[in-house]
Amino acid sequence: MNDKTNLASIITIGDELLIGQTIDTNSAWMAQKLNAIGIWVHRRVAVGDGWDDIWTSLNEESAHSSIILITGGLGPTADDITKPLLCSYFGGSMITDPGALANVKHIFEIVLKRPMLDRNLRQADVPDVCTVIQNSRGTAPGMWFEKNGVIFVSMPGVPHEMKGMMEKDVLPSLQSRFQLPPVHHRTLLTAGIGESFLAERIKDFESALPENIKLAYLPNYGMVRLRLTGRGNDPDLDGEVDRQFQQLKDQVADVLVIDSDRTMQDVVGGLLREKKWTLATAESCTGGYLAHLLTSIPGSSDYYLGGVVSYANSVKTGMLGVASELISTHGAVSRETVEQMAIGVMRKLGADLAISTSGIMGPGGGSTEKPVGTVWIAVAYHDKVASQHFSFRFNRERNIELTAQNGLNMLRKMILSA
Amino acid sequence: MNDKTNLASIITIGDELLIGQTIDTNSAWMAQKLNAIGIWVHRRVAVGDGWDDIWTSLNEESAHSSIILITGGLGPTADDITKPLLCSYFGGSMITDPGALANVKHIFEIVLKRPMLDRNLRQADVPDVCTVIQNSRGTAPGMWFEKNGVIFVSMPGVPHEMKGMMEKDVLPSLQSRFQLPPVHHRTLLTAGIGESFLAERIKDFESALPENIKLAYLPNYGMVRLRLTGRGNDPDLDGEVDRQFQQLKDQVADVLVIDSDRTMQDVVGGLLREKKWTLATAESCTGGYLAHLLTSIPGSSDYYLGGVVSYANSVKTGMLGVASELISTHGAVSRETVEQMAIGVMRKLGADLAISTSGIMGPGGGSTEKPVGTVWIAVAYHDKVASQHFSFRFNRERNIELTAQNGLNMLRKMILSA
Repeated sequence: MNDKTNLASIITIGDELLIGQTIDTNSAWMAQKLNAIGIWVHRRVAVGDGWDDIWTSLNEESAHSSIILITGGLGPTADDITKPLLCSYFGGSMITDPGALANVKHIFEIVLKRPMLDRNLRQADVPDVCTVIQNSRGTAPGMWFEKNGVIFVSMPGVPHEMKGMMEKDVLPSLQSRFQLPPVHHRTLLTAGIGESFLAERIKDFESALPENIKLAYLPNYGMVRLRLTGRGNDPDLDGEVDRQFQQLKDQVADVLVIDSDRTMQDVVGGLLREKKWTLATAESCTGGYLAHLLTSIPGSSDYYLGGVVSYANSVKTGMLGVASELISTHGAVSRETVEQMAIGVMRKLGADLAISTSGIMGPGGGSTEKPVGTVWIAVAYHDKVASQHFSFRFNRERNIELTAQNGLNMLRKMILSA
Repeated sequence: MNDKTNLASIITIGDELLIGQTIDTNSAWMAQKLNAIGIWVHRRVAVGDGWDDIWTSLNEESAHSSIILITGGLGPTADDITKPLLCSYFGGSMITDPGALANVKHIFEIVLKRPMLDRNLRQADVPDVCTVIQNSRGTAPGMWFEKNGVIFVSMPGVPHEMKGMMEKDVLPSLQSRFQLPPVHHRTLLTAGIGESFLAERIKDFESALPENIKLAYLPNYGMVRLRLTGRGNDPDLDGEVDRQFQQLKDQVADVLVIDSDRTMQDVVGGLLREKKWTLATAESCTGGYLAHLLTSIPGSSDYYLGGVVSYANSVKTGMLGVASELISTHGAVSRETVEQMAIGVMRKLGADLAISTSGIMGPGGGSTEKPVGTVWIAVAYHDKVASQHFSFRFNRERNIELTAQNGLNMLRKMILSA
């Protein structure tokens, strides 16, 4: 057994996670935040709403880790058994917390303006052996327990409630409690080279890395992220990670997209903001997903004007000015059509740049000539147009994602070369 | 300790899951599929790329479950240690599998048309104590081990590769191997009632449920899913779950959206297909996300024509025909503007129905009069228009999702009442 200092486990509670009805996004967020303050989440466990399963996981994880963060199982309904279990596990009795009670009343009377039920009031009940963490975004309070030198924190599973508690209380408390050696990450993104070829190219670099710095390959959507992680108390570690990262960047310079852990839409948005250029989109096969990625960035209205989702051919001709003879001659999925779509939306919206997509995402709609996964993407900047053909071979969801990511990368290159 | 028959654990391997760089979507999919054939996933564990962590998790999970499904850690690069570990754990030696080798060669020579590296060939190496599961979608084979009556299956972490193996090999093998009592789920979706009020309304129903049927509350985006789950070998269980489900439906009839586990975009798409009506979208604050949800459904081009992402006001006036005086008088986020947007896009695209959104998603852009979370949504059907005001109080991502879900629900009601 390793020394468990600064090691954390995350336990998520709820049958919905086990029957696959809900995807757990909390754990990734929590791990990121903990990591940044030097706590290493080495185990994540999901268990159902069963008494024995939860009890066992508390026992097991406290043998592995000194910090156990628990989410879920605190709702007002009868399938939630976490609170009575924690009360019994830590040997307390239930009392009403005045702060939590005031919060529940405030939320119902002032925010929701709705009558309260007895079960809402009971959300303010907590075991008398915990420190209460107030919930500024909901009715269920968090609870901080300690037992045999292990810290247990129970929080609601609702993401924005959990995030509020973590940022306001839990992370600062953990930081003030432990001497935490920071974890140093540097991440870069490459495009256009496979994982194994990348590995072959940088194998000498990798084998020469000092023991306290690790390299990881994170392939995703035709791109590969490379991450260096330095851990430990060496005061020069941050500098050493920097120096190694510079070497790594030099070795992958020709396939480097960006030397930080940012999304493509964030990189493109940053470039547009810098150049003060505006962008428009004309999407057929991506069906609004490109616009969604672009507008998921706060402040994107500064450079993104909008666009057209031209799913039907009548929208390509009517709203974007694509000639209908061109579609009948070359097809909707063709270089000619996507280029006209990009030029059309750029002119109609008066944007500096435009991107357009047309393709067959599947499962239906493919032919021998143009099978599922056939995609054309065009990018335009004033009088320059570039287009590219892709053949993806996956399911609808992945084909849409790949088209969007490759399109954003084409846009990035167009901006850099324009 | 419970009897572990028909109980499964999922182990996911990879530091990227623990530092929060990747969200695990595999486990939810696997749990759903296993559940459908009567295998209950009662634990999911994520561990990093460390030898001891993986080894410990194999020991622990085999004490909890008779089926252990493992994903990740099988890539061609040096941070992957799973295969040698499994070889040592099950006491085998590495051999080259001829089928897997032929597959790797096929993929490089025929599909990728790229030269092969030694590390690609080594993907065909497997411990001689496993049954190989061929990977039709990638280079890393899966491996099936058995030890002390426990089955261990190791698969790649790439979702579409894992899914291919599960569907073609793993699920059929598990089904033929065990006598599996089916799990019966019935799910319905409610909107417009809080979790605690719903619980209060159906508490007598819930407490009268037979022991082998459980009720769960799954709140999400302002709606609550209710799920009945029946487990066990009672031959009439399926019928009993049906009868209970009918009772439940009667009790929530006024807030019922749909009596199956479907997404709102799927429900709306089904209604449009049935009515043979076409739909157009005009999105400001949702920035293409509504279009994306609609077009994520295969075959949506049968009823969805397309739309306009009118992020800038100039696009609202230029492409949708919203009068600029109307925007300057009432603002872009107003009943007047969203109604004109919906009518405008419906006319321009010649659609039967339209939906439009305008709001302030945050974190910036709010004012005292119109704080972050202020949203207007309109739906139109020929000469009928309905609009509604919402106040969300969350972060950008959640505000966008809530706007889209509430918009789809308004669209659903408009279709049903038109």
